[in-house]
Amino acid sequence: MDAQKMTEKELEPVKVAVVGYGGMGKWHTNRLDKCEAVECAGIVDIKEDRKELARELGRRVYRDLDELLEDDEVKLVTVATPNHLHKELCIRLMEHGKNVICEKPVAMNSAELDEMIETANRCGVIFTVHQNRRWDKDFRIVKKLWEENTLGRIFRIESRTHGSRGIPGDWRNKKQYGGGMLMDWGVHLLDQLLLLLPQRIESVYAQMTNVTNEDCDDGFTAQLKFEGDLCVEVQVSTSNFIALPRWYVLGENGTALIQNFKLEGKIVMVSDWENRDAVPVNTAAGLTKTMAPRTSDTIQEYPLPEVESDILDYYRNMAKAVRGLEQPIVTHAQVKRVFRLMEAIIQSHETGEVVRDFDVPANK
Amino acid sequence: MDAQKMTEKELEPVKVAVVGYGGMGKWHTNRLDKCEAVECAGIVDIKEDRKELARELGRRVYRDLDELLEDDEVKLVTVATPNHLHKELCIRLMEHGKNVICEKPVAMNSAELDEMIETANRCGVIFTVHQNRRWDKDFRIVKKLWEENTLGRIFRIESRTHGSRGIPGDWRNKKQYGGGMLMDWGVHLLDQLLLLLPQRIESVYAQMTNVTNEDCDDGFTAQLKFEGDLCVEVQVSTSNFIALPRWYVLGENGTALIQNFKLEGKIVMVSDWENRDAVPVNTAAGLTKTMAPRTSDTIQEYPLPEVESDILDYYRNMAKAVRGLEQPIVTHAQVKRVFRLMEAIIQSHETGEVVRDFDVPANK
Repeated sequence: MDAQKMTEKELEPVKVAVVGYGGMGKWHTNRLDKCEAVECAGIVDIKEDRKELARELGRRVYRDLDELLEDDEVKLVTVATPNHLHKELCIRLMEHGKNVICEKPVAMNSAELDEMIETANRCGVIFTVHQNRRWDKDFRIVKKLWEENTLGRIFRIESRTHGSRGIPGDWRNKKQYGGGMLMDWGVHLLDQLLLLLPQRIESVYAQMTNVTNEDCDDGFTAQLKFEGDLCVEVQVSTSNFIALPRWYVLGENGTALIQNFKLEGKIVMVSDWENRDAVPVNTAAGLTKTMAPRTSDTIQEYPLPEVESDILDYYRNMAKAVRGLEQPIVTHAQVKRVFRLMEAIIQSHETGEVVRDFDVPANK
Repeated sequence: MDAQKMTEKELEPVKVAVVGYGGMGKWHTNRLDKCEAVECAGIVDIKEDRKELARELGRRVYRDLDELLEDDEVKLVTVATPNHLHKELCIRLMEHGKNVICEKPVAMNSAELDEMIETANRCGVIFTVHQNRRWDKDFRIVKKLWEENTLGRIFRIESRTHGSRGIPGDWRNKKQYGGGMLMDWGVHLLDQLLLLLPQRIESVYAQMTNVTNEDCDDGFTAQLKFEGDLCVEVQVSTSNFIALPRWYVLGENGTALIQNFKLEGKIVMVSDWENRDAVPVNTAAGLTKTMAPRTSDTIQEYPLPEVESDILDYYRNMAKAVRGLEQPIVTHAQVKRVFRLMEAIIQSHETGEVVRDFDVPANK
């Protein structure tokens, strides 16, 4: 392990260019600056103000994509443009021998994605997607709880993210540019869940919303049923002035709640199952023992576990992948699986019916 | 109004007997004691210890149902036995001229309910159901918000109740006795929602759980789609060591959250829609403006509204109904509507499909 690290250090950083210098483009260049395994070779954009900004920050600005394609020093390109441009750009880059990281959502639909994957295979280059939310600590906590079986058999997972400004006012609110909240945040939440859950999805039922936006969805709620009696609810919503918890995980022996990205939350485990005595709750209309909270002597509260996460590992992995030392963390099969699920969600919404037989679990 | 009240006062209280002196039977006798419009005539039970307890408390204990049937003083009988005995007991009482309040769930299925309603119509007596949770203040708050249009157009309502002791260990956990959480708590939550929402239910998709109980459901999650693009999620669950909020109501201009039966909660309204500026949230893996909480200058927080509720109004209404002065608050059409919905939920769970065309909205 140490020997390998030494070898890595001796190697030059992999040169990476970024196409599309908007919000995520800037995020990528900043990450590249921070990661020892890679180096930002420059950016491509069509907007003058962005080019100007890049120059001011001392970045190389390629004249256009052609100039980048001719730069043989650049082995890896990150594409961070609006969605509807991904396919054409990625294919062009791959056909010129570039390895490609595409921002999410990777494509407008599965057919486009298939074409992109086919091109990667034909050209013998790496093609992967920036599923960065796999490095979010809230997800890592849930993954740890799942893997360590902390809560006993988990029978339900709820993954939500709630905003309150509607859908962003750029390309993200236009269908023709591949906008919509399913494609924007849904793709992250679903990618996380499918990474966690290799078992087959038996069915999906979903409703999409158009509260503040007519042209494309500004949220959705999906009910996923996985093999082995596991129910998952995924919800993205953008008109919620009070947010429900980011994660709510129910195991037979305990419940975990992660309120938000700040990782506020807790775990409550049952310490005495047999003792079901309750102090009844009295309401205006009656009393209930069934729905009365447990008294503290039969449950035990714990903090959420600590987890480590370094998003730079994404580029470290890609640098090794470019050198043939590792497989890219985000695989074709995983990306296809998420896309099929998003399309099943759209189909369920449009037909109002349950959708089945679409899932092909990814081999890890 | 005052004149009518005077007349009411001059009348003798309506004599009410209670059949089944378990938890709810005792609750009923205590309510009868407190309400000026009614008087507890006595109880019927088959268990010696319960009879003994009633005698100790100074209550008349009828030898058996026959003795009660012959007591012409008793105009109204509340049936508070396990579910599977409701139909036979209620029909017998009605055929002897008694007006009947039946505890919820009123019957084992719609067919039984229809038979009971038919009997009431044939015998010319009142037959109604004790849907007491209509008097719960949490529901009254939601009703007030709905009626006063406080939140703007409401596009989603979530009604949950979460326990953590599994399903109670008496008849409620046996299918043959009409147990299960759909029938126990589901019937309340659905009755509340259908009282609020007279528009037609277009479809329902539901999943029931068997986490702690094999014989009948210990919870369920239902997605209801109402005419006019209103989505409702109803959830009862009994293995939840941390409870999600009792109510979560989303309007275009604000969100209301009622945490629990203690009525903890709040309303957050947008005060400046145009200002969508956000302080981005940074996580381990990226940043987000879309899912960043609003800053306090564009939202305003309010306490939940005050509401009044007196469960004794249920018996006051029934006393008037017995005298032909009012219609019973809980109508046949309402009770049938809730039952059809519960059966649609069961059908959706069993088939795994969306169920439609079952709803006949109740005329209020």
